[in-house]
Amino acid sequence: MKDYKPQAKWKNKLHEVIYEADTPSGKFFDIALFILIIISVILVMLESIDDFDARYHRTLLTLEWVITIFFTLEYIARLISIKKPMKYVFSFYGIIDFLSTIPLYLSYILAGSQVLLAVRAFRLLRIFRILKLVKFMGEASQLQSALKASRAKIAVFIYVVLILSVIMGTLMYIVEGDDSGFTSIPKSIYWTIVTLTTVGYGDIAPQSNLGQFLATVIMVLGYGIIAVPTGIVTAEFTRNGNKKNDSKDNGHLVHVNTQACPNCSVEGHRDDADHCYNCGHPL
Amino acid sequence: MKDYKPQAKWKNKLHEVIYEADTPSGKFFDIALFILIIISVILVMLESIDDFDARYHRTLLTLEWVITIFFTLEYIARLISIKKPMKYVFSFYGIIDFLSTIPLYLSYILAGSQVLLAVRAFRLLRIFRILKLVKFMGEASQLQSALKASRAKIAVFIYVVLILSVIMGTLMYIVEGDDSGFTSIPKSIYWTIVTLTTVGYGDIAPQSNLGQFLATVIMVLGYGIIAVPTGIVTAEFTRNGNKKNDSKDNGHLVHVNTQACPNCSVEGHRDDADHCYNCGHPL
Amino acid sequence: MKDYKPQAKWKNKLHEVIYEADTPSGKFFDIALFILIIISVILVMLESIDDFDARYHRTLLTLEWVITIFFTLEYIARLISIKKPMKYVFSFYGIIDFLSTIPLYLSYILAGSQVLLAVRAFRLLRIFRILKLVKFMGEASQLQSALKASRAKIAVFIYVVLILSVIMGTLMYIVEGDDSGFTSIPKSIYWTIVTLTTVGYGDIAPQSNLGQFLATVIMVLGYGIIAVPTGIVTAEFTRNGNKKNDSKDNGHLVHVNTQACPNCSVEGHRDDADHCYNCGHPL
Amino acid sequence: MKDYKPQAKWKNKLHEVIYEADTPSGKFFDIALFILIIISVILVMLESIDDFDARYHRTLLTLEWVITIFFTLEYIARLISIKKPMKYVFSFYGIIDFLSTIPLYLSYILAGSQVLLAVRAFRLLRIFRILKLVKFMGEASQLQSALKASRAKIAVFIYVVLILSVIMGTLMYIVEGDDSGFTSIPKSIYWTIVTLTTVGYGDIAPQSNLGQFLATVIMVLGYGIIAVPTGIVTAEFTRNGNKKNDSKDNGHLVHVNTQACPNCSVEGHRDDADHCYNCGHPL
Repeated sequence: MKDYKPQAKWKNKLHEVIYEADTPSGKFFDIALFILIIISVILVMLESIDDFDARYHRTLLTLEWVITIFFTLEYIARLISIKKPMKYVFSFYGIIDFLSTIPLYLSYILAGSQVLLAVRAFRLLRIFRILKLVKFMGEASQLQSALKASRAKIAVFIYVVLILSVIMGTLMYIVEGDDSGFTSIPKSIYWTIVTLTTVGYGDIAPQSNLGQFLATVIMVLGYGIIAVPTGIVTAEFTRNGNKKNDSKDNGHLVHVNTQACPNCSVEGHRDDADHCYNCGHPL
Repeated sequence: MKDYKPQAKWKNKLHEVIYEADTPSGKFFDIALFILIIISVILVMLESIDDFDARYHRTLLTLEWVITIFFTLEYIARLISIKKPMKYVFSFYGIIDFLSTIPLYLSYILAGSQVLLAVRAFRLLRIFRILKLVKFMGEASQLQSALKASRAKIAVFIYVVLILSVIMGTLMYIVEGDDSGFTSIPKSIYWTIVTLTTVGYGDIAPQSNLGQFLATVIMVLGYGIIAVPTGIVTAEFTRNGNKKNDSKDNGHLVHVNTQACPNCSVEGHRDDADHCYNCGHPL
Repeated sequence: MKDYKPQAKWKNKLHEVIYEADTPSGKFFDIALFILIIISVILVMLESIDDFDARYHRTLLTLEWVITIFFTLEYIARLISIKKPMKYVFSFYGIIDFLSTIPLYLSYILAGSQVLLAVRAFRLLRIFRILKLVKFMGEASQLQSALKASRAKIAVFIYVVLILSVIMGTLMYIVEGDDSGFTSIPKSIYWTIVTLTTVGYGDIAPQSNLGQFLATVIMVLGYGIIAVPTGIVTAEFTRNGNKKNDSKDNGHLVHVNTQACPNCSVEGHRDDADHCYNCGHPL
Repeated sequence: MKDYKPQAKWKNKLHEVIYEADTPSGKFFDIALFILIIISVILVMLESIDDFDARYHRTLLTLEWVITIFFTLEYIARLISIKKPMKYVFSFYGIIDFLSTIPLYLSYILAGSQVLLAVRAFRLLRIFRILKLVKFMGEASQLQSALKASRAKIAVFIYVVLILSVIMGTLMYIVEGDDSGFTSIPKSIYWTIVTLTTVGYGDIAPQSNLGQFLATVIMVLGYGIIAVPTGIVTAEFTRNGNKKNDSKDNGHLVHVNTQACPNCSVEGHRDDADHCYNCGHPL
């Protein structure tokens, strides 16, 4: 314990508020940030509605400035309060945080870059960081591990779907003329995927008898194929659930909290932990 | 048993007829009410068909009056026959019963309130009260408990779908111009959900090559994502079914009936019960 | 064995050919009938194509007459060869056979009854009778028993879907004006089911913002709801499969054949059976 | 070992490069071929886009020639390096390889045969041959065996869907007039399948009230029916997974590699194999 040079006290405090959700002020910060992010995303949406933007352009811009300033302050605070700022800057959330902050500044440098402004929608990804709710994350990680376990099967499946789409799409392009919208093979493949996945827009639809017959075959195939990913994931869930029950019997699960190590930012420490399980830094 | 002041006998009788389905008259009441509710909902539908309403307006109005009067009488009878009327009035079914009764009266006070009249469709919810069939309720509660057990997983799932929709919707808005119907980000998100869920109206459809490619990605994603809720619910059902079998072995299931306690309205008493399991009132 | 008065030998022979598929001639009869039924159904389809009918009307009519005569002869043969003809006449397949035979005769009595001629499509149902293939029937009966076991759950499910459709349909009718095609509540309910089941024609689609938001909710609901029947059926299949494995261990499955009792027409006798398991008649 | 007359050494070498992926040169050959196939398919697609073809016709044709020459050389190399060339020529992949090579040559003999050129899309099937990655193949074979095990059930299922489509299609043809697009029974059946599989293009949609009601029934049916293949496949996967776990306990799985026997081309030999398990030829 004595080996570690303690950070300045206010930095430690700041770290606790910004990176953790254990203390009241930490919780308040997270909720405030959550609301700010939601508002910032809604602003992006409202701005994209032409009527709305025309009428309330000034208000929207002002609010956007307010949010940008808040995000800028937050970004600086995050940089200061962490021990290894560069690690944060180039981490996934560091980049997201940066991209969430700069669009408005950039729009003054690169005039009229609407694309850039729309990038703000990625701010939504920031929400994942705040949702450190252990319970939900547990569920999510279960979902994730089920998907990971069936990764190879799903890859084979998607590969088969793609091959099928290309071959059926080419067939449909040969069978149907340009009249029904099958103007090229890529467009035909687009239609085949629209049909295989049972989306069925109807912007392109077969007109000839043979084309409609082939379409029917594709649909029934798609109907059967949809069973495969479902079967894979379900089998994984069932197995997973059984496994979980087993480990419950052995009692190897412990409660973890939302604290983040001030040194390496790793989360998921045990409730009774005094040191980071990753770098040994005192918590 | 002697501690309870018995209600007036006719009130007791009325309670049995209205709230229970054990006696012949109770069954008759339930079936009559069932038919009335169905008729009242069909009336609402027929009225909404302009041609039909123009021709048979008088008949429809008369029938509506007949049903309103019946519902009014029933509502009053329910109030009288129960021991704690206020508890009924503010219960879920009490409010539904009230809302089912008043629209016609209100339409004379607040002239031309079509919205109000359409509220009558909620009368359908009343059917749930009559369907006290224990067997069906058992199945429904099994469905319910399976859904409840996988609540957290489903929440994570819906959250991921929403985030995905917002991000993909924004991307599509950037990629596709106003020409193809992607006029704003909210509209784009609407389209993304239409596609992810494989509904695919086709009122909005991508026209550009990049847009169609992105749409293809969204569809295949949607195809894979549909596996997740299915997997969750199925795993829950399988586990549930096994559990049910286990409890059958231990023989802990007893038959319950549709009797409702005249004091506290709780249902689901054992066939051989003499007292309410909730408040101890004799049945 | 001596108690039974044997039928005339040729009748017995005829019964074996028509009702069973064990002998070579019985198999030949079944295959010939199968082809005739398929042809008869294809004729109905071709006739419905206006261009085709205009050009080949005479040929189609001639073929129809040939098939009708064959079906008439077959119907008479079935009547003669069975012991209790009336039981056959009023059985499910007896009625189907009769309806398959008469449309052409009736079209001369009741002039121009196109509906009647289309009834011929029900001839397809006759195929089920020929497909006495034990293996397929075993699979089908497994499917059937899985569906039967989850009947109550499916009923609850469909009930919930219907209630949901009526309520959401009414809401959409209130929210959307007549402009977007939501002209009446029944039409609105039709749209809601089109959306909930993820079919999504797009002939009716919400135009207003609130309508599109509601539609989004309905779609996500439909997405989740689709998991329920799948979960039910899958759980049933999994259990079923396990049960089948168990009974295999105990060795309680015997092979049955396609023979039908000449007295009571019951099928599914054991390969080594000498008497009908239903009426005791010698096979 | 001494019984086998060894092939010429360079032939052996060539065989190893072309048919196997164990050696560095074998791997390089496979990757190069993979890229060539992808390029050749993309060429087919680009050529089908009229604008693109008009502008870059010369480049596309040149590239097509380059690829055709490569494929021709490869085909000849395959013929030379294998011991029994005729067996290769008439094998599945032999035919695919041949069809992938000839379209350009044929287009000079049979002038203007666009259909023939589109056949080139089948080159994609060649990819399956290169993807000798054992892991993926293991997954694919698991998928395959799950599908094979439920083959009979799926056949019954598809049969029921087809019968249902014909009967419902005929009903819709009778109910709906020509106005809504139900111009013939086959078109009506096409629509029914579009609806049952929840694709729902909307190019044909019921207009009459009765038609819309029937459509609703078909949709709910389709909604329920989609559960059946999913249930079948899932149950098979779950069982399969359990079986796999069992065999793991007994330790009967060994690692196989991508080597192909130079004599009989069988693949999937054990890592420690010295002789082909099929014909005994030394590897």
